[in-house]
Amino acid sequence: MSQPPPSPRSQVRRLPDRGAYDRETIHAILDAGLVCHVGLVSEGQPFVIPMNYGRDGDRLLLHGSAASRLMRGMEAGWPVCLAVTLLDGVVLARSAFHHSMNYRSVVLFGRATPVASSAAKIAALRAISEHLVPGRWVEVRPPDARELAMTAVLEVPIEEASAKIRTGPPKDDPEDLSLPVWAGVLPLKTIPGEPLPDGGGGPAEVPLHVLAWPRGR
Amino acid sequence: MSQPPPSPRSQVRRLPDRGAYDRETIHAILDAGLVCHVGLVSEGQPFVIPMNYGRDGDRLLLHGSAASRLMRGMEAGWPVCLAVTLLDGVVLARSAFHHSMNYRSVVLFGRATPVASSAAKIAALRAISEHLVPGRWVEVRPPDARELAMTAVLEVPIEEASAKIRTGPPKDDPEDLSLPVWAGVLPLKTIPGEPLPDGGGGPAEVPLHVLAWPRGR
Repeated sequence: MSQPPPSPRSQVRRLPDRGAYDRETIHAILDAGLVCHVGLVSEGQPFVIPMNYGRDGDRLLLHGSAASRLMRGMEAGWPVCLAVTLLDGVVLARSAFHHSMNYRSVVLFGRATPVASSAAKIAALRAISEHLVPGRWVEVRPPDARELAMTAVLEVPIEEASAKIRTGPPKDDPEDLSLPVWAGVLPLKTIPGEPLPDGGGGPAEVPLHVLAWPRGR
Repeated sequence: MSQPPPSPRSQVRRLPDRGAYDRETIHAILDAGLVCHVGLVSEGQPFVIPMNYGRDGDRLLLHGSAASRLMRGMEAGWPVCLAVTLLDGVVLARSAFHHSMNYRSVVLFGRATPVASSAAKIAALRAISEHLVPGRWVEVRPPDARELAMTAVLEVPIEEASAKIRTGPPKDDPEDLSLPVWAGVLPLKTIPGEPLPDGGGGPAEVPLHVLAWPRGR
């Protein structure tokens, strides 16, 4: 946590001891998340959109419909703010005031630039796919020229980013410790259930990359 | 899904058949979520902040530090956009292009107003607490005057809102159905783990409102 924030707006101001700015911490949280919430401004109005994403080194990769107005705005260089939030537990204190969540979050500021060439788009889509389900990409039909043309791919540099992390038990005031209230943490975990085949043809056996999906185990 | 969108900006434009605008659907998604992502604009720059929330009828309730610059901006009537996203599954198609997520999401536009009186603040904080852990509020020490003064409470009317929902199997192109690729859905679920006592005093027995936490069961 000794690394300084990369800019004033990415500095964690509320509860600054929860902030971290090192690349390893930020990448680990991004790699564990499934969805980011993308914030944009259009005519003074904020918009927040949940999107899948991927990471390739210091680039965060997004994709969406090439026809989407907000994707086109991002391509045009609107400033963006992306948040990835992982909930790890409900923190149950003896006072209402000290209730909290355990979480790992990243906030990233920047501007997106289009990933333009077909080869670079395919590499980025592969990174987004591998982020969601490692091992899937080589099994499926790759995008054809029409699908690629319908898909806008964007990258945002992972430079102006901060992580914020809370772990551990509640922090009750000393005078509340004797209250007759159970206190602690209810951990939370997102886990996969049984894979549901669509019954539309193809092999019946669930492949290893689905059975061994690496999150929540 | 027959109800029309309440405004142009809350109309679901990408994949409009996934959109819904009825109060029952919107409230059910809000009630199932734990965290919303709040989008704000400050000097042209978007900010996205994860926050806990609660619901009381047609009001969405937020709380935060009274010293926070962004909370003060919301109190001053900045336009906000709030998103709640629940991930229900990874949709595994035979083509890379048709991969997707199953999800339930709500996007809400509006402006926040402060909840000012102590009585109204306490009622709102109770609603936020009951949203997170039903049954907890009556067990714990309520906020005192100092804690209340440190806490800003805001409400946003749940009026200009839309839901977007994807359920069911992948939608592959007919010509891909014969590919030798397993396709279907990997369901996702957020579940509680074993409660972890903080060991700081109070009863050892985990109370029913923690053991029976109503999400993910």
